[in-house]
Amino acid sequence: MSDFQEMMANVRSKCPLVHHITNYVTVNDCANICICSGGSPVMTDAAEDVRDMSRIASAVVLNIGTLNPRTVDAMLLSGRIAKENGVPVVLDAVGVGATPYRNDVTKRIIDEVKPDIVKGNAGEISFLAGVSGGVRGVDSTSSSDDISGLVKGLAEKCGCLVVATGKKDYVSDGKDVYVLSNGSDYQGTVSGTGCMLSSVIGAYVGANGVGVDSIIAAITAFNVAAENAEKVCKGPGSFKVSLFDCLYNLKPEDMEKAKVQKL
Amino acid sequence: MSDFQEMMANVRSKCPLVHHITNYVTVNDCANICICSGGSPVMTDAAEDVRDMSRIASAVVLNIGTLNPRTVDAMLLSGRIAKENGVPVVLDAVGVGATPYRNDVTKRIIDEVKPDIVKGNAGEISFLAGVSGGVRGVDSTSSSDDISGLVKGLAEKCGCLVVATGKKDYVSDGKDVYVLSNGSDYQGTVSGTGCMLSSVIGAYVGANGVGVDSIIAAITAFNVAAENAEKVCKGPGSFKVSLFDCLYNLKPEDMEKAKVQKL
Amino acid sequence: MSDFQEMMANVRSKCPLVHHITNYVTVNDCANICICSGGSPVMTDAAEDVRDMSRIASAVVLNIGTLNPRTVDAMLLSGRIAKENGVPVVLDAVGVGATPYRNDVTKRIIDEVKPDIVKGNAGEISFLAGVSGGVRGVDSTSSSDDISGLVKGLAEKCGCLVVATGKKDYVSDGKDVYVLSNGSDYQGTVSGTGCMLSSVIGAYVGANGVGVDSIIAAITAFNVAAENAEKVCKGPGSFKVSLFDCLYNLKPEDMEKAKVQKL
Repeated sequence: MSDFQEMMANVRSKCPLVHHITNYVTVNDCANICICSGGSPVMTDAAEDVRDMSRIASAVVLNIGTLNPRTVDAMLLSGRIAKENGVPVVLDAVGVGATPYRNDVTKRIIDEVKPDIVKGNAGEISFLAGVSGGVRGVDSTSSSDDISGLVKGLAEKCGCLVVATGKKDYVSDGKDVYVLSNGSDYQGTVSGTGCMLSSVIGAYVGANGVGVDSIIAAITAFNVAAENAEKVCKGPGSFKVSLFDCLYNLKPEDMEKAKVQKL
Repeated sequence: MSDFQEMMANVRSKCPLVHHITNYVTVNDCANICICSGGSPVMTDAAEDVRDMSRIASAVVLNIGTLNPRTVDAMLLSGRIAKENGVPVVLDAVGVGATPYRNDVTKRIIDEVKPDIVKGNAGEISFLAGVSGGVRGVDSTSSSDDISGLVKGLAEKCGCLVVATGKKDYVSDGKDVYVLSNGSDYQGTVSGTGCMLSSVIGAYVGANGVGVDSIIAAITAFNVAAENAEKVCKGPGSFKVSLFDCLYNLKPEDMEKAKVQKL
Repeated sequence: MSDFQEMMANVRSKCPLVHHITNYVTVNDCANICICSGGSPVMTDAAEDVRDMSRIASAVVLNIGTLNPRTVDAMLLSGRIAKENGVPVVLDAVGVGATPYRNDVTKRIIDEVKPDIVKGNAGEISFLAGVSGGVRGVDSTSSSDDISGLVKGLAEKCGCLVVATGKKDYVSDGKDVYVLSNGSDYQGTVSGTGCMLSSVIGAYVGANGVGVDSIIAAITAFNVAAENAEKVCKGPGSFKVSLFDCLYNLKPEDMEKAKVQKL
């Protein structure tokens, strides 16, 4: 059994508790994809509740898609509690670069929480890497051709793992960069596929520990499920439905379809 | 026509208005399942709005899945207004037992509102019954084998009807306990099937009055629809889609599939 | 190519950014239907973020489905910023007429923001037109038979375009009234089809400018997609899934199915 297959099996057997503080747009899809990956999602964002929930979680996912001062405070608290208790923290910097508020909040979370993983689309990661990237609303307008250096640089700067998603996905630990080429064009037609991937990453690092391999396994599982879903769907609506089915039904041998290249 | 069939017909003809203050994770599914059962859902949680909405509702569903101080205050207000106006109140104690905040809020709602129906999974109901039950995040880790006594005890203690869900569902009024055996294993693979059931219970008690029979009819309708959905689905995603279709298309004779046993 | 076909093509090529401040019940469906129509949705409701997002949007959609003081303030700010920057504003007055709070908020938004388009179901528009309309929760209990005069009167009074939805949809600029007859009865079985239509209208006016024609094109695209979805669905769940697919796959010639009558 390959490493990726073992990681997939671990998620399913350990059923890691993934505490999300995430946006209200795609939160239901995040919960369901987390279940389909093998994890157990919980969403709660009151400071009164977060302290106790983040502490016992296997991973924490912070997503700033629909941030406000109350939930930002909860994210900072959740992240701090998680780190104090050795719980991995994933930050999905949705829309950073689009508004000063998102920029400030992302900076605060990175500085104060020191997340284990920072994730965004090509535009968001470019912005965080100091390049005036293209972010419009929450969508990237950056080309992903030149992203590998930025991913590596950001990982080095922040001392964490960095994921940039797009037609190709890039993962770096600050030393090496991996480019992943699985997935479906339909992912761009459904709101929140990036958020959903963060939930799957949360489940994988919750069960397998923080590492480039865990992240690559998570992305591969999600993107191969997307490839399988594309084969049976008729459009964005049925693609999303099939994505849940296909991740849930993913077979160990599906992980052999991984297209991973070390740059 | 059996009682259950009459109750189903009542929901569809009366179209009870079910006011929800519920979590932002599964709220869309709650709205849609309420419609598919025959009810009319409304979701609003501002104190400024709740006073007027709860008063005219046929039933109120309070669900603490993603509670915060603002919505907790709205729940307490909604519950009080509902009770003053003879509107049935269903409390879904999502995640009670997992954190002190959830425990405190649930205690306050039970003490101050005196809901007509308290509902949870086996772990949540065990906790409320005073047994240190197993709740992890919002999932039960309790066995449901020994739950019947706890359901009865809690109903007696609170002077209300109690529902514990799981592979089997238990309903008690503090004197008798009923065990229900319909349903599909896929219900455990979709976030919020418990929340959705609360919405259907809201519609059934809204149309048929508070009683063990109304609750059993609601659970039966929901769980037989789940059995029908399981037959046509390919995984959790398509199961959920089919669950809406199947509850909407439920035939009176489907209610004859009820597996109800009085203990 | 007819005007409607050109408008559909414009949405798809320009991909207008539609900033939503909307309810947490149907927000995910709004995001996805906006994408399927050709637009790019963004949802954010913190005052700290709204100022920068509304300014750069192609259209702003304000929807009071689950309003609270914080988001109402954000809506007023968003609307003001949008108008100062020439960004079209759509107000979906969900549930106005059902509670005094909704009435007050709607009045404030109309008075202070002066939205370009006010939209509601027959009951909501009747209420706004000064007729004690029938609104129960967020559902209309008004007949749409006598709605054309009310739509025209409200448009004249507010100096904006008005849309009343129902089995037939009415659009007026205060001078003329158009009645649209496409659509599916299944739209009434899914929560938020009205909200979703507002998102599509946002995309169409964002790409094509504010005008009766843009609105009629948006409604036609949405309702013809609904007709196509009805042909392949098995109930409300699969209808919604197919609605996304069918709007995404809508062909230019589908716009020729438009049933539009000038009264």
